Amino acid sequence: MTKNRLLAFSDGVFAILITILVLEFTVPQFQTGHLLTAMIKQWPILVAYIVSYFYVGTLWLFHHDYFQALKSIDRRLNLINLLMLFSITLINYPMALVAETISRENNNDIRIAFIAYAVIALFISGTFHILYRYTGKHPDLKSERMQQADFSKSRFDPLISMSLYVLAIISSLFLVPLGAIFLLAGIGFHFVAYLHLSNALGQK
Amino acid sequence: MTKNRLLAFSDGVFAILITILVLEFTVPQFQTGHLLTAMIKQWPILVAYIVSYFYVGTLWLFHHDYFQALKSIDRRLNLINLLMLFSITLINYPMALVAETISRENNNDIRIAFIAYAVIALFISGTFHILYRYTGKHPDLKSERMQQADFSKSRFDPLISMSLYVLAIISSLFLVPLGAIFLLAGIGFHFVAYLHLSNALGQK
Amino acid sequence: MTKNRLLAFSDGVFAILITILVLEFTVPQFQTGHLLTAMIKQWPILVAYIVSYFYVGTLWLFHHDYFQALKSIDRRLNLINLLMLFSITLINYPMALVAETISRENNNDIRIAFIAYAVIALFISGTFHILYRYTGKHPDLKSERMQQADFSKSRFDPLISMSLYVLAIISSLFLVPLGAIFLLAGIGFHFVAYLHLSNALGQK
Amino acid sequence: MTKNRLLAFSDGVFAILITILVLEFTVPQFQTGHLLTAMIKQWPILVAYIVSYFYVGTLWLFHHDYFQALKSIDRRLNLINLLMLFSITLINYPMALVAETISRENNNDIRIAFIAYAVIALFISGTFHILYRYTGKHPDLKSERMQQADFSKSRFDPLISMSLYVLAIISSLFLVPLGAIFLLAGIGFHFVAYLHLSNALGQK
Repeated sequence: MTKNRLLAFSDGVFAILITILVLEFTVPQFQTGHLLTAMIKQWPILVAYIVSYFYVGTLWLFHHDYFQALKSIDRRLNLINLLMLFSITLINYPMALVAETISRENNNDIRIAFIAYAVIALFISGTFHILYRYTGKHPDLKSERMQQADFSKSRFDPLISMSLYVLAIISSLFLVPLGAIFLLAGIGFHFVAYLHLSNALGQK
Repeated sequence: MTKNRLLAFSDGVFAILITILVLEFTVPQFQTGHLLTAMIKQWPILVAYIVSYFYVGTLWLFHHDYFQALKSIDRRLNLINLLMLFSITLINYPMALVAETISRENNNDIRIAFIAYAVIALFISGTFHILYRYTGKHPDLKSERMQQADFSKSRFDPLISMSLYVLAIISSLFLVPLGAIFLLAGIGFHFVAYLHLSNALGQK
Repeated sequence: MTKNRLLAFSDGVFAILITILVLEFTVPQFQTGHLLTAMIKQWPILVAYIVSYFYVGTLWLFHHDYFQALKSIDRRLNLINLLMLFSITLINYPMALVAETISRENNNDIRIAFIAYAVIALFISGTFHILYRYTGKHPDLKSERMQQADFSKSRFDPLISMSLYVLAIISSLFLVPLGAIFLLAGIGFHFVAYLHLSNALGQK
Repeated sequence: MTKNRLLAFSDGVFAILITILVLEFTVPQFQTGHLLTAMIKQWPILVAYIVSYFYVGTLWLFHHDYFQALKSIDRRLNLINLLMLFSITLINYPMALVAETISRENNNDIRIAFIAYAVIALFISGTFHILYRYTGKHPDLKSERMQQADFSKSRFDPLISMSLYVLAIISSLFLVPLGAIFLLAGIGFHFVAYLHLSNALGQK
């Protein structure tokens, strides 16, 4: 298994996933003559789609830069990658849950949906944590550029994002808006983590 | 992030998007024995699909030639590209709105659907405008061929198409058919813009 | 636009199309305890899927060998290719029509569905005919291998398959089973055409 | 047809298939305020998705290593590959059947669904058996590395997995849980077969 093959397959999964997310965003049920009202009520799915698109997009940027900087791929890295892609494909489900429950305006359901989103996000970050640990123990997989890079800033990034998602889960139990804030903070933090990585690797 | 990777990912998103547009074009509900009547009533979705297919196809041709002519990609260009792909994935939604509302023959709904299509198209052209501005300010990203090319004809293309879509939005408020004409003119203009670019880059 | 890019994009569209065809093949509506009966009644969609899968698969093999043998691509060839891909994406629709109408066992509807399938197939073959004519008039686009190849056997293949589809359309009007036979003959003939091309290009 | 093209197309089909499997995993029907109960009832689809994802993922790893080790591709290998991809695209259907029937808790339907899954899996393994036989008779298609590799351990792998699926089918007729165990054993065995192949080819 060459690195290029793994990247091509992963790019394919990311490209498909990011495109099928939009399939949730369909023509609403509406009474003839009242389309606009029905469309306005769709704001939750639009917001959920925007957030999820940029979430998956950031993960792709990160995944890409990271694997690009590896020198070679072994079998275990391949399996870790399959697990990572698995966790990311799940994001479609809680995205739709969040949109649907906000539309129905039931606080209990919204809580469940946010927790589901945070659990999947926690799972995704967990697979990145596994990736970091594995490559940390196998420096021979890294390119020279990566070995010499200063990862002091990004070392704890997966743990930070995992903590944010744990906080999102716990706080959702008591106060849904606080849970939502932690969830968004976690997603936003991925972009920070991407910048850390990208800077450490000296990319512009 | 190499240029080839960005192009492969973007080609993937374009290929998927252009193929899933057709998923809207499904077997109609029909009374047994009256399939033909039901199929004929589907003309709006066929027309909307044809227009949208060639719209996305033209955007792909354009996107491709443009990025092919760049020398390198930086992080911001990557983000602009993700925003551009985001805007293009949205086209499925107003395409389905236009088809559904024309089927129901309610003028108010048709107006909303055309405006929605024009708003998304305006957003798409806006991202191309951002792309033009960014590469204009960073000539080092351009290949030599692109730096020497005469872009005098295509300089204002994103602004022209944005103007057509603004006209489509405004005129739809008063006279839906006029809005439709401006919308089609805007979509058709993308092909002109592609020819401008392609000629400037000296491609056959 | 390089040839490789066009091929990668087209391969992407073929891969997506051939995979989403299977989405029509879903869990049937069934009364609990009577799944088997419901599954057996799905034979039309299974048959339609098998035929369409090998139809699109053959088109992909053909498309691939043909473009592989071209030396370069110009803008018009790009547009012909987009038109060809457009025609092929439409195949999902009549495939579902045929399956649905056979399930309902209404002869009039089945006739319409077969005619729709043949019309799309005729359109697809028509785009291949345009491709043949265009490259025939522009021998500079062909590789040396292709210029020296003996295409005497495959020269009329698009016209033969178009004739078969015209016969399928006409005979469906009078006798549906005869129309079905011509339709299957047309689809089967694509494989013969692929062998002609492949042999002419000296491929094993 | 070059080997790289075949691999790119196949990778595309695998990437799409593995991503659309998740489309079965959608927001459940639920009474407002009772989302959690409805989600918990979805466990069968989650389990079916997890199993099928790793099944297809393993097949991709295997397919990839195998074709990577071939030196060249001929027309028949191309057709065998199309047949193999066809068989794999079918997996979506029994996956959904298994999930749906377990949800409804009717033993007869569950039996049918497990048998359907095992039949498709048997078909898939059958295409791998055809692949093994074909390349066995055409050693010129193999790379030097592959010709010298010791395949004594993996020689009978397709036959072993086919036997497991036959056992799954037969035992499902009498005792559904036993059928399920053989089915899972068969799917798990693919990973063993992948390790055999990967070790024989000397990959880490």
